Amino acid sequence: MTSLLAVEDLGATGIREVLRLADSFVEVSERAIPRVPALRGRTVATVFFEDSTRTRLSFETAAKRLSADTMTFSVSTSSVNKGESLRDTVETVAAMGIDAMIVRHRSAGVPWQVSRWIDASIINAGDGWHEHPTQALLDCYTVRQALGRDDPFPGLRVAIVGDIKHSRVARSNVAAFSALGARVTLVAPPTLMPPSLEGWPVEVSHDLDAVLADTDVVYLLRIQAERMNEALFPSLREYSARYGMTRERAGRLCSSALIMHPGPMNRGVEIAAEVSSLPNSLITRQVTNGVAVRMAVLFRLLGAPEASEALVAHA
Amino acid sequence: MTSLLAVEDLGATGIREVLRLADSFVEVSERAIPRVPALRGRTVATVFFEDSTRTRLSFETAAKRLSADTMTFSVSTSSVNKGESLRDTVETVAAMGIDAMIVRHRSAGVPWQVSRWIDASIINAGDGWHEHPTQALLDCYTVRQALGRDDPFPGLRVAIVGDIKHSRVARSNVAAFSALGARVTLVAPPTLMPPSLEGWPVEVSHDLDAVLADTDVVYLLRIQAERMNEALFPSLREYSARYGMTRERAGRLCSSALIMHPGPMNRGVEIAAEVSSLPNSLITRQVTNGVAVRMAVLFRLLGAPEASEALVAHA
Amino acid sequence: MTSLLAVEDLGATGIREVLRLADSFVEVSERAIPRVPALRGRTVATVFFEDSTRTRLSFETAAKRLSADTMTFSVSTSSVNKGESLRDTVETVAAMGIDAMIVRHRSAGVPWQVSRWIDASIINAGDGWHEHPTQALLDCYTVRQALGRDDPFPGLRVAIVGDIKHSRVARSNVAAFSALGARVTLVAPPTLMPPSLEGWPVEVSHDLDAVLADTDVVYLLRIQAERMNEALFPSLREYSARYGMTRERAGRLCSSALIMHPGPMNRGVEIAAEVSSLPNSLITRQVTNGVAVRMAVLFRLLGAPEASEALVAHA
Repeated sequence: MTSLLAVEDLGATGIREVLRLADSFVEVSERAIPRVPALRGRTVATVFFEDSTRTRLSFETAAKRLSADTMTFSVSTSSVNKGESLRDTVETVAAMGIDAMIVRHRSAGVPWQVSRWIDASIINAGDGWHEHPTQALLDCYTVRQALGRDDPFPGLRVAIVGDIKHSRVARSNVAAFSALGARVTLVAPPTLMPPSLEGWPVEVSHDLDAVLADTDVVYLLRIQAERMNEALFPSLREYSARYGMTRERAGRLCSSALIMHPGPMNRGVEIAAEVSSLPNSLITRQVTNGVAVRMAVLFRLLGAPEASEALVAHA
Repeated sequence: MTSLLAVEDLGATGIREVLRLADSFVEVSERAIPRVPALRGRTVATVFFEDSTRTRLSFETAAKRLSADTMTFSVSTSSVNKGESLRDTVETVAAMGIDAMIVRHRSAGVPWQVSRWIDASIINAGDGWHEHPTQALLDCYTVRQALGRDDPFPGLRVAIVGDIKHSRVARSNVAAFSALGARVTLVAPPTLMPPSLEGWPVEVSHDLDAVLADTDVVYLLRIQAERMNEALFPSLREYSARYGMTRERAGRLCSSALIMHPGPMNRGVEIAAEVSSLPNSLITRQVTNGVAVRMAVLFRLLGAPEASEALVAHA
Repeated sequence: MTSLLAVEDLGATGIREVLRLADSFVEVSERAIPRVPALRGRTVATVFFEDSTRTRLSFETAAKRLSADTMTFSVSTSSVNKGESLRDTVETVAAMGIDAMIVRHRSAGVPWQVSRWIDASIINAGDGWHEHPTQALLDCYTVRQALGRDDPFPGLRVAIVGDIKHSRVARSNVAAFSALGARVTLVAPPTLMPPSLEGWPVEVSHDLDAVLADTDVVYLLRIQAERMNEALFPSLREYSARYGMTRERAGRLCSSALIMHPGPMNRGVEIAAEVSSLPNSLITRQVTNGVAVRMAVLFRLLGAPEASEALVAHA
């Protein structure tokens, strides 16, 4: 593997390897000096054509903890918005001497294009509504950690709730959870479902209340306020009434059920503020694990085969 | 002490400790390799909801010279402007694993809110018109250094001149200088004074010329041009005529008097260009000392008790 | 030499020294850990009053590979746009303790002003239409590398094609190539030529096709779309037809001719997409060499005389 463009690049075996590798890096992250020399001398560039400070910082923190150098190329979509400019930008960054490029773009497929233009390893950090594979990996890791078993996934009932249609997080999580054997149910009003779900290994529901009692993991997606302008749902209030994880609904989950959200949250819309801080809410844990899981992905792509000892050596 | 939100968190004793600690870091800053390993493995995040590249760089330089890692989260007030989003942002940054967060926000009190949400040490880098404690500390340090005495403050006559009403620098400096025993006089037109000064340990004057001869330190505040639109004074020219530190006024100060300004200066408005480069102007020195004083604050908050030797060890 | 403001600061001897020094840093850049300790403890600040992420990253990568610390001060021209504010900004950055400042500004002459205000070494990274000396140095280096001879310049025929009038790259390259003995021809429509070429050591042509066969290096400048609004040429299409490096024109170059462009390219305007990836196109190589050449410049300005061994020591 030289790039991570989509969850299916990894397959179930690859996902499991990343999760196990991440265990080591969670341990590293808890040290007084959370740094290993594994990628010393490597350069990791973040090239984000769409703003996301939090995702960028997570990757850059991961790279630094592996002792890699980082290079940040932030571009507003306005200044680099034509195909040729995109190519020019990534070729220029690559020519300065990098080993991996983390790419985010509002158009699906851009990371694949980039991987054809340059030699560095490419990590897709979100392309349009398409994929966001490291988010799915950190979500799987967080479930596995919370449940305390090496392979809790077979038969696990995961409900992904909200704006499935516009969500790369949903697509990557469907791929990852179902590859590991979980049973995924998508829950949304018809207007927020993709036009066709043919081939998706999922069940579908339009009624969150009907699903709650039979769910082990409730994964809430962010509602973007601008969708309301597209009349995909009547109001934030009505959305919240039917699909929001209110305190009352949280109370009807089985006691071991887990609550997740990729952030940033709209507290009071898809999730009540008080639900986000319940003991079974993993939202902060997802962010923390994000760094370790991205360390695992970077190490897997860039670490020398003989580097497995370096992995946990002290920096 | 785990956070520095306001000058009064330190008290006179704490301020004096920071000033003495800063002496060590001034020495470090003058080395060929101005770096000590004191905070190796720690991560310091700057989270600025209001732009200030110079303050951010001062903190980040301080953190790097202590061998800490830095994380920069820059946000325009437009993108993260609601209470919940603020909380989401700081919780996310904290969850990635940080030890201190430097916060600037245009609303007073935000650093206190943040300190209730997250576990890291919080440093207030300016909240609205309220406080900017490290600015006051570096100002006190610079006066002490210029006067060459360990405690020059008792009875020292400090005049703070300009837009007191909208100035967090004024509020923090009043607190710090008066805690150390200085006598502070505020000089401004009535429209630029706070509506009430009850409880402030200060004297008040509307006439700069009457104050000049009896002042040891003249501290000039920045006039923000947008205040003119609020009709708080008739014109920049008229402001300058009555409250600007012109060459003529500088000549009427006693020969040992010091001139200070927190920057950025409006040369020709609150201070004449030629005055800013007089030998008794400390403006550049304030910036230089800012790094050492912030090293002292970071070390005091994050340094292990047993780290006092590490303090001056070579990196 | 303490600053690099213009190519003529170096003269032919200085240019040759930089090119030879860059050979060492090209070697360093190809190592598994591309880093030397030569500038450990030094701080290099980039202060760009005009956006250019790629140039800034090239300088910062160069500084990091020399083990220097970097400080980034990005300013939109709107926020710091008056002479006094410019001075305040650079004096503030300098006062934090830096050794070199890389300055870009849309007005010619600003780096000279800055060098009078502060003590650090100044590198001009582009001032208006005036100079961009490190671009010229990396271009000369790339030609020398491609031709595989230590001094291929005497008599070398270099054609610089495009918007000469508004190009600092053209001015610096004219100075550098002609100082080394090359014969430079400027090729452009009259509207894109400077009003006077008196004293320029160049020949002039308005006909690219007449020049092609007698050229060893074709250097294409970027056409900025906003020039069209100034009616300096009728349309991008017409410009391309008369001055663009099309595949057909590339075929009429002599077989050893080299094609260069400072980036970012407008593929399809001044250069056809397919031409940019021909084997004799050096565009990617220019970017790669840019890092090594800037390492050479930084080392020459900041390296201790006794540091020549440190130059290639492993970090």
